[in-house]
Amino acid sequence: MDEIFKQALLYDFYGELLTEHQKEIYEQFVLEDLSLSEIALSAGISRQGVHDMVRRCQRILEGYEEKLQLVEKFVSIKEKVHEIDRILETYGNKKTDTKKMIADIRRIADKIIEEL
Amino acid sequence: MDEIFKQALLYDFYGELLTEHQKEIYEQFVLEDLSLSEIALSAGISRQGVHDMVRRCQRILEGYEEKLQLVEKFVSIKEKVHEIDRILETYGNKKTDTKKMIADIRRIADKIIEEL
Repeated sequence: MDEIFKQALLYDFYGELLTEHQKEIYEQFVLEDLSLSEIALSAGISRQGVHDMVRRCQRILEGYEEKLQLVEKFVSIKEKVHEIDRILETYGNKKTDTKKMIADIRRIADKIIEEL
Repeated sequence: MDEIFKQALLYDFYGELLTEHQKEIYEQFVLEDLSLSEIALSAGISRQGVHDMVRRCQRILEGYEEKLQLVEKFVSIKEKVHEIDRILETYGNKKTDTKKMIADIRRIADKIIEEL
């Protein structure tokens, strides 16, 4: 997974567990893609200070994922739902066997339920 | 939702954020369904001590859910996947319109993707 996308995903899941100040700085870095210098300027702290805070936020978010693994779970479910979508699309285009299509989707749906 | 089921679900999601000691006590209460007195006896602390710790664990877990709302998200996705299952079952039994069945499932799958 692309590193910035992964950081954004972690922030999307666990960001609310950061302090307001951490969120403010980290959002500028990960979501708004500003440079450390730009953030330092607008926050009125040193570039090194921003760098340290960004690293700290990353470690905090990664720590939550290490313990909870909810992002991993969600990504896996998302892939399976996309798989259902693909099966339906293929069926719509090629008129494959209906029974097989239903069995395939049920198999995936059951896997999702197991993970939830 | 049944209160004990809700507590178990919260524990399932966020339990790893409790300390080992908290987990030990709380699991006995929520998962093994032991009484406060039974837990007090085996842990060698007072009944009141167990009571306070259980309440504290509940508040911690509920605090995480208030901030992250991931249990809510998962429950909602689970319901939708069950809905897909029901649609497939109904189709298998009654041979309803295939196009409609596919459209219904895609609509639900799209909703799940939006939530993830």
